[in-house]
This record gives sequence, C-alpha cells and structure tokens, in this order.
Amino acid sequence: MPTYQAPIEDTLFVLNDLLRFERYSNLPGFADASPDMVEAILGEAGRITEKVLQPLNQQGDREGCRRADDGSVTTPAGFKQAYETWREGGWGSLAFDPAYGGQGLPHTLATAVGEYMSAANMAFAMYPGLTAGAIAAISSHGSDEQKSTYLPNMIEGSWTGTMNLTEPHCGTDLGLLRTKAVPQDDGSYAITGQKIFISAGEHDLAENIIHLVLARIEGAPEGVKGISLFIVPKFVLDAQGKPGARNGVVCGSLEEKMGIHGNATCVMNYDEATGYLIGEAHKGLRAMFTMMNEARLGVGVQGLAVSDVAYQNAVTYARERTQGRSLSGVKAPDKSADPIIVHPDIRRMLMTIRAINEAGRALVLWTALKGDLSHRSADAAERQAADDWMGLMTPVIKGVLTDKGFDNAVMAQQVYGGHGYIGEWGMEQFVRDARIAQIYEGANGIQALDLVGRKLGLNGGRAIQAFFAEVGQFCEENRGDERMAPITKALKKGLNDLQQATMWLMQNAMAKPDNAGAASTDYMHLFGLVALGYMWGRMAKIAEEKIAAGANGKTAFLEKKRITARFFMERLMPESAAHLARISSGADAMMALEADAF
Amino acid sequence: MPTYQAPIEDTLFVLNDLLRFERYSNLPGFADASPDMVEAILGEAGRITEKVLQPLNQQGDREGCRRADDGSVTTPAGFKQAYETWREGGWGSLAFDPAYGGQGLPHTLATAVGEYMSAANMAFAMYPGLTAGAIAAISSHGSDEQKSTYLPNMIEGSWTGTMNLTEPHCGTDLGLLRTKAVPQDDGSYAITGQKIFISAGEHDLAENIIHLVLARIEGAPEGVKGISLFIVPKFVLDAQGKPGARNGVVCGSLEEKMGIHGNATCVMNYDEATGYLIGEAHKGLRAMFTMMNEARLGVGVQGLAVSDVAYQNAVTYARERTQGRSLSGVKAPDKSADPIIVHPDIRRMLMTIRAINEAGRALVLWTALKGDLSHRSADAAERQAADDWMGLMTPVIKGVLTDKGFDNAVMAQQVYGGHGYIGEWGMEQFVRDARIAQIYEGANGIQALDLVGRKLGLNGGRAIQAFFAEVGQFCEENRGDERMAPITKALKKGLNDLQQATMWLMQNAMAKPDNAGAASTDYMHLFGLVALGYMWGRMAKIAEEKIAAGANGKTAFLEKKRITARFFMERLMPESAAHLARISSGADAMMALEADAF
Repeated sequence: MPTYQAPIEDTLFVLNDLLRFERYSNLPGFADASPDMVEAILGEAGRITEKVLQPLNQQGDREGCRRADDGSVTTPAGFKQAYETWREGGWGSLAFDPAYGGQGLPHTLATAVGEYMSAANMAFAMYPGLTAGAIAAISSHGSDEQKSTYLPNMIEGSWTGTMNLTEPHCGTDLGLLRTKAVPQDDGSYAITGQKIFISAGEHDLAENIIHLVLARIEGAPEGVKGISLFIVPKFVLDAQGKPGARNGVVCGSLEEKMGIHGNATCVMNYDEATGYLIGEAHKGLRAMFTMMNEARLGVGVQGLAVSDVAYQNAVTYARERTQGRSLSGVKAPDKSADPIIVHPDIRRMLMTIRAINEAGRALVLWTALKGDLSHRSADAAERQAADDWMGLMTPVIKGVLTDKGFDNAVMAQQVYGGHGYIGEWGMEQFVRDARIAQIYEGANGIQALDLVGRKLGLNGGRAIQAFFAEVGQFCEENRGDERMAPITKALKKGLNDLQQATMWLMQNAMAKPDNAGAASTDYMHLFGLVALGYMWGRMAKIAEEKIAAGANGKTAFLEKKRITARFFMERLMPESAAHLARISSGADAMMALEADAF
Repeated sequence: MPTYQAPIEDTLFVLNDLLRFERYSNLPGFADASPDMVEAILGEAGRITEKVLQPLNQQGDREGCRRADDGSVTTPAGFKQAYETWREGGWGSLAFDPAYGGQGLPHTLATAVGEYMSAANMAFAMYPGLTAGAIAAISSHGSDEQKSTYLPNMIEGSWTGTMNLTEPHCGTDLGLLRTKAVPQDDGSYAITGQKIFISAGEHDLAENIIHLVLARIEGAPEGVKGISLFIVPKFVLDAQGKPGARNGVVCGSLEEKMGIHGNATCVMNYDEATGYLIGEAHKGLRAMFTMMNEARLGVGVQGLAVSDVAYQNAVTYARERTQGRSLSGVKAPDKSADPIIVHPDIRRMLMTIRAINEAGRALVLWTALKGDLSHRSADAAERQAADDWMGLMTPVIKGVLTDKGFDNAVMAQQVYGGHGYIGEWGMEQFVRDARIAQIYEGANGIQALDLVGRKLGLNGGRAIQAFFAEVGQFCEENRGDERMAPITKALKKGLNDLQQATMWLMQNAMAKPDNAGAASTDYMHLFGLVALGYMWGRMAKIAEEKIAAGANGKTAFLEKKRITARFFMERLMPESAAHLARISSGADAMMALEADAF
C-alpha cells in the first residue's frame, strides 16, 4: 500500500531560499506568513494530508462514488468525515479574502498545500479545488450582493462549487453550447440543458453546491459572444440565505471512468433551474476564464503532485526490492541480491522524475507568487510583469507538468516491474489518476495553442521577451562561475533553441497558420524545458552559494540539488534540439494526407 | 464502442513488396504460402478477428475472469465459444511442424495473424500466445516422446500452455528462484513452490493446460546454473495419453490488475505436482529462453497491435467529431464546426502513431522472416545472418514497440478529449492493456540491458556491424536519387548517431559498466529509431519505384507511404541526437546520490 510524505523541506527551500518570501512582508497577507508560521502551516498540512487524506486514496479508488435513483451521490467511505476535518481546520479559507471569512494568506502558500492534498488524494482534493475556482470567479465577477451571499459559506467550506462548461457535443469549442437561459420576471433566469464531465457535480460533503454554469440567454448572438455565466445553487437560498428549495438541477448519471474514482464526475441535467447572471450578459467566457486560469494552474499542480507521490513510493520499492547485482560490484553482500536502486536504469527513472518534480515545484510556486504579486503589489510595473509571467506560464505549467506528471507516474510504476501492474500496490492508480490531468481544463493540445496562438503575441510579445531577457541575463551573470558554467551552458543552449523556435514561428506562422498548430505541442514542451531548466539554474546557484558559505548544516540537501541540476542539464535539456527540429519542419508532411486517407 | 479492421492491405504490401515473399518459395512451407493463399488466409484472419474476437474485447475487460473456491477459473462470457471457433479454424497450428499436426506455413504469416488477434482482443490472444511459446520450448528442447505426447494436442489447440518463471521474490533475477523439484522413483519430479503472474495459468478454454515450470532440483547449484525446466500438466496423462488424474497444481488466486482483465493472471501453487524434466538438468534457463525469445517478439507485436487498433478508432473519432475551425479556413461550411482532423495537433498525434505502426509492422515481419530463414534456409551463411538479426532485433522490437505502443495508445486516447477517459469509448482500455507489454517478458529496461550488455558484443559485434553495413549501404545507394535524398539523409544522420553511441559504449563501458547501464534505454530507443527509419527508407524506395512505373492502381496507397516516410524523418528521427547526447553524458550524475539520499 502506498505511503506519502509531504515534501516540506523542499517547499521551504523554494519559499525561503529561491523565492525569498520574506522580501514581500509588506504585501497584504504576507506579514502573517512569517517563516515560522509558514513552516507551522506546512507541517500541519503535511499531517492532515499524510494521516487523513492519503489513507483514503486507494479505498476511494476501489469504491468510487455511488448514485442513488433520486440523483443523490455518496462519496467513498471516509470522505465525508475527512472533508469535515479538512473544513474545520480552515484549509479551504487559507488565501481568500478576509472580508468574506478568508485568512488572507498568500496564494503561494495555498498552492503548496494544494500540492500535498492532490498528492495524498487527488480525487478528494478536487472537491475543494473546484470550489476554489468558483470562489475566484465570483470574487472577480460577482456583484457585492452575490459575493456576500455565496462567498462566506464557500470559503468556510460548508458549500462547494463546480464549473459547468462541457456539453455532449462541445468541449473545446464552447461557441457551440446550447444550454439556454430564459429571463424570469424576478430578474433570475431559467436554465435548461445538459452538462457533462462535471467534477464534484453532486456529492454528500456539503450543505449546498454552487454550480457556475455557462448558458446562452434566449436571443443571444451565436458563438462565444453569446455565452453568459450563471450561478445555479443546488438549493435555492431562502430569505435568510440558507439552503431552501431544491433547484431544478440533478445528477443524471455518473461517468464510468479510468481513474479519479473518488470524485463524482456527473452528467448534470438542468431543467428550468433558477440561475443568477454573474457579470455581464454575453460576457460569460471572460468570467469563466478567471476560473479556468485558476483551475489550469491547479491541474498543473496535480501533475506534479501525483508524480511526487509516485516517485516517493518507487524510491521505497527500489531500496527494498532486491534483484540482481550491481554492474560495478556487489553492494549488499549480506543479501542474495542487491537492492534495485543500484541499477543505473532504475536510477535513470528515479532521477528523471526527481529532476522534473523539484523544478516543477519551484516553477509552480514561483508562478503562484507572481499571482500574488499581480493582485497584491502596490507597484503597477510589478503587477504587469507578474501578470505577463502568469499568462505565459499558465499553459506551460498545465500542459508540461501534466504530460510529465503522467510520464513520471508511468516510470515510477515501471520501477515495480510486474507488481506495478497489480492494483494492491497502488502504482497503477497513480497512472490512471494522473491521466485525466492531461485532458481536462483544456486538453494539453489546447494549452499549446493558447501559448503559441495567444500568449506569445500578446502586447507585442512583451511577456516572452521579458522571459528571454531574464533567463539570458541569468546565464550571462553566471557563465564566469566555474561551478555554474556547465549548468548555464546547457540552459543557454536550451534558451537559444527556444528563441530560434520563436523566431521560426514569427517568420512562418503568419502566412501559414497551420505551421503554428503543427509546432504548438513541441513549442510548449521546449518552453517547459527552458522554464524548468531556469529553475534548476537558480536552485543550483543557491546551492553553490550556500555550500561556499558553510551550508549551515544543509550540505547534504544542497548537494542533492547540485547533482540533480546537473542530471537535468545532461539528460533532459538535450531534448530541446529535437523540439526545434520538429518545429522547423513545418506543417507540410503533417497536413498532406486527405482526411479520408488516414 | 471501438471497432477494428485488420490492416490486410498493409500486411500484403510488407509481405509482397517489401519482403518479396515469393523469393522464398523454395523454403519448406513457403511454397504453400503463394500470394493468393496468403491473401486468402489474411482475409479469413481478418474476418475472425474483426467479427469474433473484437466484439468480446470490451465486455471481457469489464467482466474479467472469475475464480471459484475450488481454484477453477471462468473466462469472460463468449471467450470459450470464440476459442472453439478459433481452434476449429486451425489458427493455432498455422506455422507448426506438420509432423505434429501443424500446417507448416511460414512463421511470418502466423506473426501477421498474431498482430490481428492482439489488436482485436489482446487478453484473448494471450491464451494461444502462451501456448505457442510452450510449443516452441517443447519443440526445441523436448525429447521425441515428449513432443509426440504433448505437441499434437497443443498445436491443435485443445490443450494450452503457460510459462512459470516469476516467484514473489524474484522476477528478473531468476537465480533466486526457490521452487523445488524432488526426483521420484519413476523418473518424474515432485514440484513444490509458488509462481506468480502466470498468464493463462488456469481457465475453462482447454481440456488440459501444460505448464512449463522453472524449478531447482534438490541439491542443484545455487543461482541460474541450478535451474531446470519441467513440464507439469494440469491433468497428468493416462496410459492412453488422455488427461487423467488432477495434478497437484492449483490457481491460488487471480491478480487484480490494471488491464488485460480477460486473461487470467494467476498465482499458481505447486504442491508435489508431477513434473517431467525437459532438456538437461540445470540447463532450464536455456530452454526457457527459447520460449522467452518467441514471447518477446510476440509482446512487441502486442505493442504494435494495440497501437494500431487505438489509431484506427482515433482516426474515426477525429473525422466525426466536429469542434472549432481549421486554422487555414473553414473546411466544413455546412457544419457548425470542422472535424477535428483538420487541426494540426490532432494530425501530429495521428501521423506519429501511423509512422510508428507501419514501420513497426514492417520491422516485425522482416524479423519474423529472419526467424523463418534461420530455421528453414538451406544456406548456413543465410541462417547465421538471420540468427544474428533476430538476436539483435528481439529486444529492440520488444522494448521499442511496446514503449511506443503505449505512448501511441495514450495519444489516440488524447484525440478523444474527455471522452477518452470514459470507459464506454474503449480507449482507456487500450491504454491499460498496452501498459503490461512494457513490463512482462522482461521489463523494457531488461530488454535494453540485453541489447547493450549481451547482443552488441556477441561474436565480436558481428550482428551490429552487419546491421550498420546494411543500412549504410542502403543510404549510399540512394543518396543520388533526388526523391529519396531527404529520406536517406535523415536516416544516415540517425545511423551516424547510433554508430557514435556504439563507439562511445565501446570506449566507456568496459572500464565502467555503469556507463552501459546508464546508456541502455536510450541506446535501445536510438536503435529502434534507426531500425524503423530503415524500414521507412525501404518502403519509400518501393513507393517511388512503383509510382514511377505507373503504380498499377495503387498510387493513393503508395503516396501515403511517401508522405508518412517524410513525416517520420522530419518528426521522429531528430530524437536520435537527444539519445546520443544522453548516452554520452555517462553515468556520473545518475549514480552520484547515495541510495538513502533519494
């Protein structure tokens, strides 16, 4: 049975040493996030995720959710009690607005906690995860009345939230959606239609469920310009603001799916359900994107999280399982065979996962901090730069960390040999769970198109130029440092490949847009390599400086950073050239066949 | 619900145009495999796999196998009848020795049929697949009496076979195995021990099950040099050679696993079961390797097969699902959106799968033909060259086609977006089924070690040198051909990278064996790229020649080969440089961490 240990030491390294969190103590909420407080919160988060959530993960997968004939849904045994423990601990309110009962702490901190939660129990963590997205949308686009009506209970956790976008005939292409909203005399709307793949759509954890639903107001323009966003509570609130009459929305069925069985993936049927317009009519997509961006970062974190828990278990197995002898001579003469961690090919898998996870964690928290800055900084230039980084990095984190997260879960499973294929060891669940993160909240191909088709060109390429300048400058500053030179040389090579790819796109995608589409996934992964490589550059630099300064008892930890950085540059960064070669080959061979020739 | 169409046209292209099968009509059995006969057999194989096996695949996954308290196992509904249909059709006997009831046709042909079977229903195909391995072992190492006792019923299909290697504490490292064999007065042995992960270990399809079991004769040397191979029938044969008394071997439990639910993966308990030594005492591993090599090619074929059926369904979905508009302008103005096959990133996935599958099919059949030549050719030099190729290519086909097969199934699933994650669409089953092929019959890391540690150096590197010479000569011969030049240039670059990697290994692995282990998986995949690229070179050449000669009504088919070859060279071959860079980085960073530092 798998275990989990929250990577607190590594999170603290990122927050304290890489991000130097203390610098921001003048920002709202950051003063409360002193190093001691951060360590205490992470310690508590470690305990609840390790002791309460993780032990329910495997059984939750086996048992799944059950729907009764009346449309009610029961979560797996233990989920309800765990949710209560989680809610009472105030974990859902960490970073939200104190005006509505939140603790106002940095989102960066909530993001770190979110990683632990998804690692311990991804299916469970989705219930509060979806709620957080709904809170973000109401916070950004709701009226004051809507905020005071819904946010306190959602932040407190006694109500949860959902996102209702997909319909049977439309997922990516929301312009096709058909769910309709008919204005009522009291200013509300009657919502009718069917939504599918609704995570946490119905369950027994909360007193109310606040559905955020995309629909088309009668007579609205066709396409994406006629879509509005509505709040549709499961129970319409009574005059006291308490859950009252059951609304016309029910879970019609649960999807039988590959993984995340502990989360209820619902077909939701809306039959003249009472809904309230949020934000402006026909501008629902913008409001939905607030949720989506939040959610996309969260999904990237899921990729990282499952990769990390899979890694931890693979390491344990590789230390305990004995099989064969080391190529460089017997390592465990007292045993009939050596532990398989002595074998280079096992190391290759473990080191690959490790190198991606630690840089992924750094990139996620680095980006979460940009999110905090974009909302909380007093300096307009800093807010803009932070926004630029967020916009650029959101599709990269979602697409790359979930693709790599899945690959890593598969590699961790491979370490187990045949046992990895057997349910009781838990590794195949990680693979099945990790798989969805590549698909939902915009399949990764859509993330790549968002990056190449939207984010690159925004504001004349301001964000990407700033990124190039920042990474380039880091390489330049450290090329003279003998210990850093192998790192910066490889990073610089990756950056050059990325810049060449960007140039190629500028020269070739305008006249022939298919060239952008054909390049997009490779470009996203090339970007991810450089972004992760930049994190390794930064982390290696810190390790070198601290080791030179005496390391303060942390030598072993820092030495691991140094070695893993080198591994990343030697083993992962060389992929950049293959991406560039593919990108520059263009769309011709890809698009040459007629559709019926496949 | 997924569908399947056997790729008969493509198989015929490989057999007739690439392999020029008719050249071999002087070999035993090949005369019966005239073009007409081959086409007829493949047509029939297409019918049975499409109409009988494929319709049982999804239900077989859902239902799985069931074990009763007495240890008997029931296969999913329909399997028994399908097995009867298959057996009565003589499909199990295609390529086996006519002296024991086989049809004596080329193994190459049986391999093509095996692909269709695994594509249609991988879990089902494993029952006869394991039998074929057991037949091969008995044919090669059994006494005449053993052959005449067991082979006729196994070839006819009324008895099936298994391979019993793995024990709870040993899989890869068979030297550790503990199952013991005690000599009995009648010359038989009493076999006692536990075997795990035994595919097709117990079921209701056959009248008898012939287990081939590795065990250690009492007093045998420790390690792999004390292992012997035994025949242990489920029912001991009576004086008439009919299944008689129940032997002391039972299925103790079925494994709950990630996929291939329709195949019974058994824990087998041997309690003084009667076994018969096959081949020499203490030389069981050699006999087992006969089965393993057979099985490893078969597993490579599974990777190809699942990849192909997943591809076919993804193509259908991509043609039918409409979402968004083409970047190069509306393609389906009569619809609210274009079919997603117009999007380059969807094409990228489909073309990648296609490029690997068609070259994979060519490589599998090319290698199967070498197998036939190694057994049937009258020319000793030809037999030796064929053997060399087989030895070299077996780990490559197993490791590369199953890694790529899994990746391809994942990509095909990705084409479906959210629907790919839902069971009813069948794509997630392909992913779960394909996963095992990377693990069993020697995890792919073991294949890579077999290639690098054993096969490369055999006979002074004779096999690899012959491969280099053959591919190099092909490039040389065609570099002047304007149409072929882009193909041969890319292939030559890949070959150069492979040769450099080989040179690096020669220079760096002797003094430091970890360098070989650290390079092995990348080396295997680099080898696979060049081998698949060579197949594309050959196929492109045929396409060019035939198109130039008028194409005989096949222009569309040949044009697809031409385009897909180009896609392979532009999009897949560039990976060779990344493999070389990783290989040449050596083992240092990989091995630097202490085991407890992970």
